[in-house]
Amino acid sequence: MPRAKDVIVGVDLGGTSLRALVVNGQNEILALEKNPTNPLQPPAGLMDDIARIVGEAARAAGLKTRDLRAVSVGAPGSTDPSRGLVHHAPNLGWKDVPLGPELKARLHLPVMVDNDVHVGAVGEHALGAGQGARDMVAIFVGTGIGGAIISKGRLFEGSAGGAGEIGHTVMMVNGPLCGCGKRGCVEALASRTAMERDVRAAIKAGHKSVVLKLMREANKDRMTSSVIVRALKKNDKVVRKVVKRAEYYLGILAANVVNLLDPERVVIGGGIAERMGEEFIAPIRAAAFDYFLRHTDYRRVRIVGGRLGDNAGALGAVVLARQRLAKSS
Amino acid sequence: MPRAKDVIVGVDLGGTSLRALVVNGQNEILALEKNPTNPLQPPAGLMDDIARIVGEAARAAGLKTRDLRAVSVGAPGSTDPSRGLVHHAPNLGWKDVPLGPELKARLHLPVMVDNDVHVGAVGEHALGAGQGARDMVAIFVGTGIGGAIISKGRLFEGSAGGAGEIGHTVMMVNGPLCGCGKRGCVEALASRTAMERDVRAAIKAGHKSVVLKLMREANKDRMTSSVIVRALKKNDKVVRKVVKRAEYYLGILAANVVNLLDPERVVIGGGIAERMGEEFIAPIRAAAFDYFLRHTDYRRVRIVGGRLGDNAGALGAVVLARQRLAKSS
Repeated sequence: MPRAKDVIVGVDLGGTSLRALVVNGQNEILALEKNPTNPLQPPAGLMDDIARIVGEAARAAGLKTRDLRAVSVGAPGSTDPSRGLVHHAPNLGWKDVPLGPELKARLHLPVMVDNDVHVGAVGEHALGAGQGARDMVAIFVGTGIGGAIISKGRLFEGSAGGAGEIGHTVMMVNGPLCGCGKRGCVEALASRTAMERDVRAAIKAGHKSVVLKLMREANKDRMTSSVIVRALKKNDKVVRKVVKRAEYYLGILAANVVNLLDPERVVIGGGIAERMGEEFIAPIRAAAFDYFLRHTDYRRVRIVGGRLGDNAGALGAVVLARQRLAKSS
Repeated sequence: MPRAKDVIVGVDLGGTSLRALVVNGQNEILALEKNPTNPLQPPAGLMDDIARIVGEAARAAGLKTRDLRAVSVGAPGSTDPSRGLVHHAPNLGWKDVPLGPELKARLHLPVMVDNDVHVGAVGEHALGAGQGARDMVAIFVGTGIGGAIISKGRLFEGSAGGAGEIGHTVMMVNGPLCGCGKRGCVEALASRTAMERDVRAAIKAGHKSVVLKLMREANKDRMTSSVIVRALKKNDKVVRKVVKRAEYYLGILAANVVNLLDPERVVIGGGIAERMGEEFIAPIRAAAFDYFLRHTDYRRVRIVGGRLGDNAGALGAVVLARQRLAKSS
């Protein structure tokens, strides 16, 4: 029987799924619940879903909701942790949603809210590929590119909690159009969305690729990480070239943050990194080392893949909640 | 008569000149000494010069060297503040010079050493354009582009004291060659060196410019800030276009750091910023605002010019020394 008052439920609120982990004071996972979500429903409905999955996860761990210490949510957008507010979450269609207070009213528990990339980085730092590093940068490559900075063992939040938007640093002035409306952001060069754009353009230009067939087989309308990995296994030249280019850009991105922030570790997470592993990381590392300043002792800087997979966010939310509870008590 | 034991001498060790400020506990300047230096002499000779100017500056303030609390030096290169070491200062031809211990042996005083851009940023933060901001980024535009980060009121040093090399973040993949050997660094796009390269190329391509004449008149072989300002006053179209482009790149650079680090203020320093003032800053600000993420409340972020001019480094060295003395006592 876990000491319930040490137990926190970490929730990863994604655009299409909801994941809740029940985690004890030793950061062991006692239970995991996972549900698809309907992002098109109004915020109140999704918040009901979150409250429900927290209760289900607690029960699965043999606990009652009221026995929990807290609930901590990673949300896909800009947040104000001090007020539990989700400012702007485009994938959910949310603007200024008081997620923390609303969940607190439903669950009668302390509720923390932070950005999903922030909590993912805290998770990898505390329990995954960042363990032992005081200063770390996390880069998550998915449909977008997210980032977060750990400085002296703590999340670097910036002046208003917004630090880490590494995907929207420009790396190619006047480059391809980004979803944010600007040009040349690294997200428009090396995200899965950018890779899909380039693969589709190559196919349109007459190059042969198995990607569209693989997408049909998997019943996907997007080039998911698993489609990419399967295409690479089939030695798809178009995908190989596009992934290689993205790795090169990600290497330069890693070098940019190393030159600017001098961390001792860079963790590359997200679906492609997880599925491809060292095959994806090694070329990123090689490109980064080329772009480090010459006087940098780059053997000191380790560039590694994430280790927590889909649990990084929910685990990190728990770790961050514990830090904040310790601070406020 | 100043309370001597509060008095620190801040030294700005430049590639071509040496500047020493005698500063009291209220951060008032009691005396200033300035000398040209010969960067081609061996390190020992230059360190003798530094020891000499510290003594002269103290005397000019009515003090003896032994009455000083400490000496703090900003050096043009990578440093290890914990050991007083200058790792790599290309403009001086220095490699692993133990500046701190050597000066201590000459002056019999505590000696601190840090990077010149770091101390310049600390100066602007404590006493100049960054006053009142908890989180700030400084960008110094000169022959190179240097940067430094202030987080929660303190210099962000990174894992090995090397944070801030913003000039060597790539903003144009495969762009122009940089002095560091890579391509597309912002230093190769928007430094004074890059501007001069572009002006010379335009002249070579047949465009008319007064720059070479102004350089001859001023007896300079480089396009200095004062030459740029005089050319702009004469409405030199080549210089105007080149400066405008650099301002645009610097605006994107400022947006990159705002998106990544979420500071509340960005301070643009260096010779051109000082001489041109708001004429230089306003276009940078406009470009940056265009590149901020849309959900950023950018009215909150102020982009301003530096205010301390050539004293920023020496003043910041004093402020940083005081912080370190307080920490170690």
